[in-house]
Amino acid sequence: MSAEATRPTDLARPSDLAWPAELAGRTPLLVVDLDRLDRAISRMAAHVAGLGLAARPHAKTHKCVEIAQRQLAAGAVGLTVATVGEAEVFADGGCRDLFIAYPVWAAGERGERLAALADRVSLQVGVDSAEASELLAEALGGRDVGVLVEIDSGHHRSGVDPVQAPQVALAAAAAGLRVDGVFSFPGHGYGPGGGAQAAADEAAALGAAAEAMRAAGLEVRVVSGGSTPTADAADARVLTELRPGVYVFYDAQQAELGTCTLDDIALTAATTVVSRRRTPQGGQVVVDAGSKTLGADRPAWATGHGRVPAVPDARVVALSEHHATITWPDGWELPALGTVLQVAPNHACNAVGLADELVVVQGGAVVDTWQVAARGRNA
Amino acid sequence: MSAEATRPTDLARPSDLAWPAELAGRTPLLVVDLDRLDRAISRMAAHVAGLGLAARPHAKTHKCVEIAQRQLAAGAVGLTVATVGEAEVFADGGCRDLFIAYPVWAAGERGERLAALADRVSLQVGVDSAEASELLAEALGGRDVGVLVEIDSGHHRSGVDPVQAPQVALAAAAAGLRVDGVFSFPGHGYGPGGGAQAAADEAAALGAAAEAMRAAGLEVRVVSGGSTPTADAADARVLTELRPGVYVFYDAQQAELGTCTLDDIALTAATTVVSRRRTPQGGQVVVDAGSKTLGADRPAWATGHGRVPAVPDARVVALSEHHATITWPDGWELPALGTVLQVAPNHACNAVGLADELVVVQGGAVVDTWQVAARGRNA
Repeated sequence: MSAEATRPTDLARPSDLAWPAELAGRTPLLVVDLDRLDRAISRMAAHVAGLGLAARPHAKTHKCVEIAQRQLAAGAVGLTVATVGEAEVFADGGCRDLFIAYPVWAAGERGERLAALADRVSLQVGVDSAEASELLAEALGGRDVGVLVEIDSGHHRSGVDPVQAPQVALAAAAAGLRVDGVFSFPGHGYGPGGGAQAAADEAAALGAAAEAMRAAGLEVRVVSGGSTPTADAADARVLTELRPGVYVFYDAQQAELGTCTLDDIALTAATTVVSRRRTPQGGQVVVDAGSKTLGADRPAWATGHGRVPAVPDARVVALSEHHATITWPDGWELPALGTVLQVAPNHACNAVGLADELVVVQGGAVVDTWQVAARGRNA
Repeated sequence: MSAEATRPTDLARPSDLAWPAELAGRTPLLVVDLDRLDRAISRMAAHVAGLGLAARPHAKTHKCVEIAQRQLAAGAVGLTVATVGEAEVFADGGCRDLFIAYPVWAAGERGERLAALADRVSLQVGVDSAEASELLAEALGGRDVGVLVEIDSGHHRSGVDPVQAPQVALAAAAAGLRVDGVFSFPGHGYGPGGGAQAAADEAAALGAAAEAMRAAGLEVRVVSGGSTPTADAADARVLTELRPGVYVFYDAQQAELGTCTLDDIALTAATTVVSRRRTPQGGQVVVDAGSKTLGADRPAWATGHGRVPAVPDARVVALSEHHATITWPDGWELPALGTVLQVAPNHACNAVGLADELVVVQGGAVVDTWQVAARGRNA
């Protein structure tokens, strides 16, 4: 046997190949490594507490009540969600303090659902226009809900410029809403090395907006920002609260951004090798998880459509709905047909959005199955 | 009023803005235009019949029993599916003839489920290795299931070279399986102008594989190929069967490939304008459908992350999980906050894979709601 031929035994460690025995024939499915999940939750909780900030993790990443409960047990003051539907699921799951970090348009059914939520949890909602505040106030009929004005800190998505913050906030107050402060999403941090600059941009924008609001006679209790890639550079002089999301799982994208290592990734797809061929460069394997399992996210700077943590030089060079085509490095024996491989999605949040359940593994064994309770709750 | 200011009234035609009145407050959700759907189904059925081929449309696109029944009523001989889970759903929905066009690895539970399927429907399964055939035969325990050898016609995903077809087919026969023929997916047709060449490549590869198998003494009853972009150039001298999928809905990707026009697109997301701003180039609106509703597919040749059929010059320049950022052309009045806009996803198959139901509209009114019965059935 050649030296290379011994390498595949490296793949046979519990986190990669030992546990799939009981998963064979059930792929593709999403698997959570419980020890990695808990380590990530406690590390981020300690980091945010060390900065003296409140932690309000974004639950859109996991959509899972069991994980939310772990975040709250680790000290989170509440949860961030993206939609009214997610807020309903986590309220049902026992969370009493929710921030919908989105410029919600409270029309029709959505307004009625917001009013019902306000009757059972402490609720905050994002706004970036006077019109949205007026519609929200009308829907809430005097219920006590806080609003945070969304500030554009460089991502240029929703949100207003800092100088416009007082105008939006005063309109919300005039509509009868409780103005709690400002928030931003420094999404432009999603590029290699972009985290620190995005964190600085966000602190500057949120600081300017808060100052302008205070100058207009408004109280600013909450200055909420942050994301996983900007968490290390969060400016505690400006922020009062941090909203990281993807850190609970991490993913191939975060590893390639340098936010984590491949060994930190807690969410992978268990996949089966269904086809293989040798190539001049080594080999190619096709596994049974495609864009309907991993999600189709593929930022320009990513090296592929996901990663194989056990084989760092492997690359997911193509993704169709039910196939991932993986180039296998020369010198590594091609895995046999039927081998169960772990593939880390580029973007964990979108992979979870495709799954009904998460299989939980610890010490090489399946220990639980969690429902993705908020999957599909996009409205 | 300026001339431009009158243009938004163009948007107020039933297919764009009239119907959403009852959908306001429920966005984002996927909407099917019933007339466009039925027109696409009858057109493709007529095209395939005109070629003298059997139609076996791919149900992975819609995952919906009501649409499958319309395809069968229009003359389809059966359905194509990608997974055992999809096969189970359409068998439950009344389809008696199913081809799993995938190199299925029949291990464990999957093998047991295939055997149960074989007891209630006429079943064909793809194979591209001797090992897969042996495992399949073992799982089926003598049940009568046909296999089609997958041929690589240029997509270089799964499938074998035509010269290897007899070897794979003889192994399947030796394992006790019924060899019906060959199939291919000309996925390399998914590039502008690539359809005709991909169809020719596929015909050459399938023809060579079938000839080699016949020379080896094997009967080849089925030569199955095709996809929506290659359907117009399908070679009826070689093929016996066509498996188009996305034509039932079409999508922004197919429109940009030239396979359809924006007016042919039957599946759109009903979205709400939640944020807007003026820019030097015109304006930008943000709607509440992101990658968790539209899917994140973004081929390099696409002009964006989806299209707004009513405003051909609008571009979805950025997509996050719950936001689509759309640049609005100069001279078109920016839609008001709260406007319900139709956005066509780049890839309908992945958008449907995220939805629990499809709202069916006809003549500007909601006429039905269909469950996406096979959503999430990836195993």
